[in-house]
Amino acid sequence: MTEDHRTVTVGKYLALRLQELGTNHLFGLPGDFNLALLDEMLDGTGLEWVGSTNELNAAYAADGYARMRRSVAALVTTYGVGELSAINGIAGSYAEDVPVVQITGAPSTQASSDGALLHHTLVDGDHGHFERAYREVTAHTEVLRAESAVQQIDRALMTAVRESKPVYISVPADVAVAAADGGNLSRPLPSPRSDPAMLEDFRSALKERLSATASVTVLAGPRLHRRGLEREVQLLAESPGVRIASQPGSKAILDEEHRRSLGTYMGQITRSSAARATVDTAEPIVLAGVVLSDVLTGLFSHRFDVADAIALDVVDARIGGSRFYGVLLEDSVQALRDVVTELDLDDQLVDPVRLGVAPAALDEQPLTQAQFWTAIQRWLPSGTTVIADAGTAFYGALELAMPPGCDLLGQPIWSSIGYTLPATLGACLAQPDKRVSLFIGDGSAQLTIQELATVLHRGLAPVMFLINNAGYTVERAIRSPDAPYQDVTSWDWLALPGALGAPDAAITIRASTGAELTAALALATSRTDVLVLIEVIMDRLDTPTILTELTAGLAAASPAPSHATTSRSTQKPPEEPHVTDH
Amino acid sequence: MTEDHRTVTVGKYLALRLQELGTNHLFGLPGDFNLALLDEMLDGTGLEWVGSTNELNAAYAADGYARMRRSVAALVTTYGVGELSAINGIAGSYAEDVPVVQITGAPSTQASSDGALLHHTLVDGDHGHFERAYREVTAHTEVLRAESAVQQIDRALMTAVRESKPVYISVPADVAVAAADGGNLSRPLPSPRSDPAMLEDFRSALKERLSATASVTVLAGPRLHRRGLEREVQLLAESPGVRIASQPGSKAILDEEHRRSLGTYMGQITRSSAARATVDTAEPIVLAGVVLSDVLTGLFSHRFDVADAIALDVVDARIGGSRFYGVLLEDSVQALRDVVTELDLDDQLVDPVRLGVAPAALDEQPLTQAQFWTAIQRWLPSGTTVIADAGTAFYGALELAMPPGCDLLGQPIWSSIGYTLPATLGACLAQPDKRVSLFIGDGSAQLTIQELATVLHRGLAPVMFLINNAGYTVERAIRSPDAPYQDVTSWDWLALPGALGAPDAAITIRASTGAELTAALALATSRTDVLVLIEVIMDRLDTPTILTELTAGLAAASPAPSHATTSRSTQKPPEEPHVTDH
Repeated sequence: MTEDHRTVTVGKYLALRLQELGTNHLFGLPGDFNLALLDEMLDGTGLEWVGSTNELNAAYAADGYARMRRSVAALVTTYGVGELSAINGIAGSYAEDVPVVQITGAPSTQASSDGALLHHTLVDGDHGHFERAYREVTAHTEVLRAESAVQQIDRALMTAVRESKPVYISVPADVAVAAADGGNLSRPLPSPRSDPAMLEDFRSALKERLSATASVTVLAGPRLHRRGLEREVQLLAESPGVRIASQPGSKAILDEEHRRSLGTYMGQITRSSAARATVDTAEPIVLAGVVLSDVLTGLFSHRFDVADAIALDVVDARIGGSRFYGVLLEDSVQALRDVVTELDLDDQLVDPVRLGVAPAALDEQPLTQAQFWTAIQRWLPSGTTVIADAGTAFYGALELAMPPGCDLLGQPIWSSIGYTLPATLGACLAQPDKRVSLFIGDGSAQLTIQELATVLHRGLAPVMFLINNAGYTVERAIRSPDAPYQDVTSWDWLALPGALGAPDAAITIRASTGAELTAALALATSRTDVLVLIEVIMDRLDTPTILTELTAGLAAASPAPSHATTSRSTQKPPEEPHVTDH
Repeated sequence: MTEDHRTVTVGKYLALRLQELGTNHLFGLPGDFNLALLDEMLDGTGLEWVGSTNELNAAYAADGYARMRRSVAALVTTYGVGELSAINGIAGSYAEDVPVVQITGAPSTQASSDGALLHHTLVDGDHGHFERAYREVTAHTEVLRAESAVQQIDRALMTAVRESKPVYISVPADVAVAAADGGNLSRPLPSPRSDPAMLEDFRSALKERLSATASVTVLAGPRLHRRGLEREVQLLAESPGVRIASQPGSKAILDEEHRRSLGTYMGQITRSSAARATVDTAEPIVLAGVVLSDVLTGLFSHRFDVADAIALDVVDARIGGSRFYGVLLEDSVQALRDVVTELDLDDQLVDPVRLGVAPAALDEQPLTQAQFWTAIQRWLPSGTTVIADAGTAFYGALELAMPPGCDLLGQPIWSSIGYTLPATLGACLAQPDKRVSLFIGDGSAQLTIQELATVLHRGLAPVMFLINNAGYTVERAIRSPDAPYQDVTSWDWLALPGALGAPDAAITIRASTGAELTAALALATSRTDVLVLIEVIMDRLDTPTILTELTAGLAAASPAPSHATTSRSTQKPPEEPHVTDH
């Protein structure tokens, strides 16, 4: 941008601000209320359009893009029908701290103030319904007005960046083409900054709090990952006396072979009892970008003292009961490193944490989950981005010892099945130099399968493991495994790339045995030029170890039928949880 | 049900009430928060589970089912991820007056009151977000409590039936299995009734209002269709002096060959200028179940006097400025018939309304929209339910002269593309004896294609016309036809039934010329035992007449770029609307 205060349209201003924040692609679908907006946003702004097959998929793709880039991503939908279809994806971005900008092309300002009975409205004269629905799942919403659009756009984008949460911007058709003061673009949006006085207070209090400690145990959560603070975590791990465990959602944020790594902590589901004990008895525990949700804590089986913890969150920090508002995560982590370096502690390392799945022999017998993940463990190339759908895929991948440069993307908090297939589209576009391995079950893949067409037609080349286990295996593990609602229709997965019009963009292969899987993995290694779709056949009741334990706990929480109906119910009461410690 | 006050569970109570209201199928997907609920709802209640491939599709399927049955339909989703995915479908049911019951299996009452940080929540301690989002798109929401669940369920269902709108019921997992007083089931929910005094007042006022009239012109809207009042419309048409036009959304609610039918009225887009003039100059006009939205009025080009109209709506009526609250549509239509019969008017019929598309020769040349609809007009069997997606499909179908017993389902108000494919699943299950002809474009079908698997694996046998015109033709007609966002990926549509695992459940054929289409239609006639998928190839800029006129109007409403950007924009300013009168 030049420094002259040239006039641009509101749509173009929005596009240029997104570019400035690191976004080069725009996801979404057209609709008559967003055509003018799209024309403005795509005309000479450098944003590349990525048309998705539906809006939920577009939201998932944008989420995957933002996670991979550690920056904002954006999608454009049309009013009503489009934006509402995307709302589950945006809610997932909220739950998982991903700054996605949901942009809706809306009816004109005049039509909305008149309450015109337009298509895509509820024909009740109220054009505000959908923006109000979005208030429930975003950190900020704006309905742009021509006279204040620049300020509104900047406010929304700064909120997304600062809080690492999705925001919603509705652009009436007339406002999309209205003039905006482009001179503001000569000053980039300020990066979020900590409150300097609060940060200084925090640093002093932290020093005092840690003055008598012999070691510093850190639980590193997904918000560190979203903020792109991997490097800071690695630097922190260089100090003696520090031990770092990760949560699902930030697995391998510290190299899992690192001597100060405790691997992944999930309360009683933690693989290593030594690691678990270290975290549970830490005094104090440092919770850095942590989410204490059910799944991430092994169903609330964490035993460290949350109230007394040092908690570093996205926009504030806490030491026990003392809160330091406006201290950003990047600065609190830096302060922690400074203080720990000064302390010059001795290492008190726990036993090496043995990660990775237990070896299981690969043979001509039907594949088990244990065998499958053993084979993946051996095969997984360094630098792979693993994207794994909620279910056997994510919790199997969680057991892997990640080679250097690998990352695991998934939704252990929001857990919306089908998310990962469109997220793979976004991730591949965000970092074309990294190869993605997608793990997804058949039930999950059916929800969002059409986005495979976009992946194929764009010539993207992930490896896609389609785990075909005949239905919703996770739900079977929780309750009523033989209920009709657990079944899905049986597809010819290997025929899909052809049916989606891109037979040459994929190689497909089925693996029912260990031997077949070995051959398939060799193919995936050799053919990096196309998408390699590997259909893996496994038993409908087979689950990886972590998932077995997790679903046992969830089953225990599933209510028994009331006594009133026991006689007529065929439902067995759930068993007691039997989560074992390792 | 016997009359003894036996105890059932809340889940079972809900299922039995739905049965009572005419629902035999339950749509949706399982998730850990709804498994106990599903077990209760499906155990011995007679409800058949229809698993969908995703929640939006389930909502669309339920909508199609309810429209076809003219009763409520229900879907069950899980909390957060599931219910939010369905919300666009439910909003569509609101806009189009379809009583769909959205049921969500939710976390336990205790977990929600504790604000537990569960998966599928926003991990902010607030479990109310999604119910609040649903308040924006439903007539009523309930979060069930064990002690009042029966009353809450009944209240929600009575609202859905009375107002012909969707409602939302959240069922915490513990409440799903809690005891409920099943004795209430011995008294069916009361049918909605008009306020007797108000109805009498209305009848008198109507008689006075019509005492000097020479003829009665009725515009019959979609709400008559949703309330299942076709028979009443037919009876009304037996009185001399009555003329009845329909709106899109209630096309052919009166047999289009009927001498008192005026065909479909859409303001200046009305096919017959005589019919248009009759409606526009009616004094008074009777608006029966009418929606005066943009598309339904030819972009607000109706010229009758709305303020002075006799308006019969779902739960109230109006004569000019006098409102009669609590007068139901079925009763106001009956009152109108009584009054008109007493009047004993003379017929003043307009010229016969020539419906149907203009003949176009079918030959070996590439098919045009005009030729396609000509062929469909000749082929369409009596008793067909035509389901047509927003776009060339719906507006092409709107031009057809419907044979006896035919019906047209679509979304001229909500216009959510992709709706009709899952709606076809619901419609086929709702009335297995009626054959469905689905018309859907390639862009639209991609949004919801996975539901084709459910249709196929259930052995349903609609005829599916896949109009392959290489992208979003409607949007191209409105603005920027060559923009990259107008394109969709090109699929091998005929390979899809095989890839979806059901090659024997479908016959597939492609038609690029008139001759090929003739052969394909013959196949559709002869093979009623399987789904017949006909891919029809047409030009990406070709549109049926009504749509050409409609999109010209929408294009005129699309904003020109601001002058500030004219020099840098390649966008042509939109042309003036050139809607012609026929």
